[in-house]
Amino acid sequence: MKHSIHARHHHFHWDNSLPPVATIAPGDVVELETLDPGGGQIRPETTPAALVGLDFERVNPVTGPIFVDGAEPGDAIRIRVESLTPAGWGWTALIPDFGLLERDFRTPALHLWSFDPAAKTVDFKGLARVPLKPMVGSIGLALAAPGAHDVLPPRRVGGTMDIRDIGPGTELYLPVEVAGGLLSFGDGHAAQGEGEVCGTGLESAMKLAARVDLVKGLALEGPEFVTDGPVQRHLDGQGYYVTTGIGADLMQNATDAVRRMVDLLGRRHRLAAEDAYMLCSVCGDLRISEIVDRPNWIVSFYFPRLVFG
Amino acid sequence: MKHSIHARHHHFHWDNSLPPVATIAPGDVVELETLDPGGGQIRPETTPAALVGLDFERVNPVTGPIFVDGAEPGDAIRIRVESLTPAGWGWTALIPDFGLLERDFRTPALHLWSFDPAAKTVDFKGLARVPLKPMVGSIGLALAAPGAHDVLPPRRVGGTMDIRDIGPGTELYLPVEVAGGLLSFGDGHAAQGEGEVCGTGLESAMKLAARVDLVKGLALEGPEFVTDGPVQRHLDGQGYYVTTGIGADLMQNATDAVRRMVDLLGRRHRLAAEDAYMLCSVCGDLRISEIVDRPNWIVSFYFPRLVFG
Repeated sequence: MKHSIHARHHHFHWDNSLPPVATIAPGDVVELETLDPGGGQIRPETTPAALVGLDFERVNPVTGPIFVDGAEPGDAIRIRVESLTPAGWGWTALIPDFGLLERDFRTPALHLWSFDPAAKTVDFKGLARVPLKPMVGSIGLALAAPGAHDVLPPRRVGGTMDIRDIGPGTELYLPVEVAGGLLSFGDGHAAQGEGEVCGTGLESAMKLAARVDLVKGLALEGPEFVTDGPVQRHLDGQGYYVTTGIGADLMQNATDAVRRMVDLLGRRHRLAAEDAYMLCSVCGDLRISEIVDRPNWIVSFYFPRLVFG
Repeated sequence: MKHSIHARHHHFHWDNSLPPVATIAPGDVVELETLDPGGGQIRPETTPAALVGLDFERVNPVTGPIFVDGAEPGDAIRIRVESLTPAGWGWTALIPDFGLLERDFRTPALHLWSFDPAAKTVDFKGLARVPLKPMVGSIGLALAAPGAHDVLPPRRVGGTMDIRDIGPGTELYLPVEVAGGLLSFGDGHAAQGEGEVCGTGLESAMKLAARVDLVKGLALEGPEFVTDGPVQRHLDGQGYYVTTGIGADLMQNATDAVRRMVDLLGRRHRLAAEDAYMLCSVCGDLRISEIVDRPNWIVSFYFPRLVFG
């Protein structure tokens, strides 16, 4: 059976007391819309200065919650994303006090993208062409703990995970903590790199279809997923520039690696730092290259060379 | 000009007082051998019990050092790996008090691999076929700081970086700290995943050829490299199993993600935990999926499904 859920059925916190907007049987398909992750606060005419006043209580609306019949704590809900279609516009922002390099980038910046949802790439200021690969930033269930929980951090039951590879063809498994699971979707990105380093991808409203199943008794400690094929052939055709951060702290290493990529893109391609940082967030990848040669670990940042044609 | 350097010209520490074994001009090619990373302590007849007595002062021998004419502090040395051929055997070990899951795996284990260096894959106990992709774990320069420095941790000047994608076709740039740079190579792996999570890959002696250049005045903060094409099409054909670790500490998240992959491979493919952990180290990848949704970050572990055929 199919269920259609309009984007007006959204919420801004995870809360197991929210009434379900739909009840479905395992195996049903849900077709739904998600609002753009700015919750309507960012529009094609928005200026960067307006980002300073962004109301974080109204970002990342998620559509739902959906009650899955028969789901109980100790089960897992399986979500197979069948299709995902972004709206024809989106945005990427540098928001003060947000993002991995928040100490380096104090000035708000906003880029508005316009694109054909069926196209393979989208232009960025005439400087680069970014491959489109829609993904769902937020898929989550309600927590057992009562009350309203911030929509932003991911948790054991999923939520705003911002994992690049959760999109069409992915089967995601989430552990159930409350009866019915209470499933919601939001935070669509038409493109995003691993890490989402500036804090935003190519943020976009989406139409989504997903098949939702129940796996009784599959007690998971956290989210897991299976992809049905390669995950980055849209990016890898011409190889990568790679910078590293080396030291005893993985967070510092990640910061160093991304900062060095901003430098590299300035040196090799004359990109302004703001542009380089935005591109890193929409199409570059953070990897842990080495985590055993005590006391120094390596985080690497991979930037796809094909965006420069 | 070509230079041939025998593996007997090796050392076990980074030390800027070591006499060079060769002096080369920028643009020259070096052809050299590296010993297996056990430094001869592990042989086809070695038993797991012998790992307890492994002498860490004799692991990871590196061949060199090579003096690059004209290299001075403030320059970078560029190394392009031209070819890399592993010996026909190698090993992977679980070594007590070493590796990301050292608290879970207290018992030493050793797997000896035998393979055709020209083959695309190698069998693992009849349970999986692992794609071969030779890489160089250790490429480094001498530190400005005097004395003998442990060969194992990577540093600003490179060293034992264990980055999967540093192999044929890669151009690596290392910052020079002493006259001549003093370049050495070692720690070859016929296969390794990102993170090298158990602490060993498919450890193997190697024959290596590399073109070494000098970039005057390129003052880098740390290693960077450029790949000439895709880096993981040998792994991605059938997609991935992915587990996650979610929380405020990236190291704990990485540990959780790998531990959960060991569980997943046991659940889905009935692999013993030791076998799963070894396979994770030789062909699975650690990624940072999300690093901005304060206070929880996500580290994911990607395991390639094609190893199961």
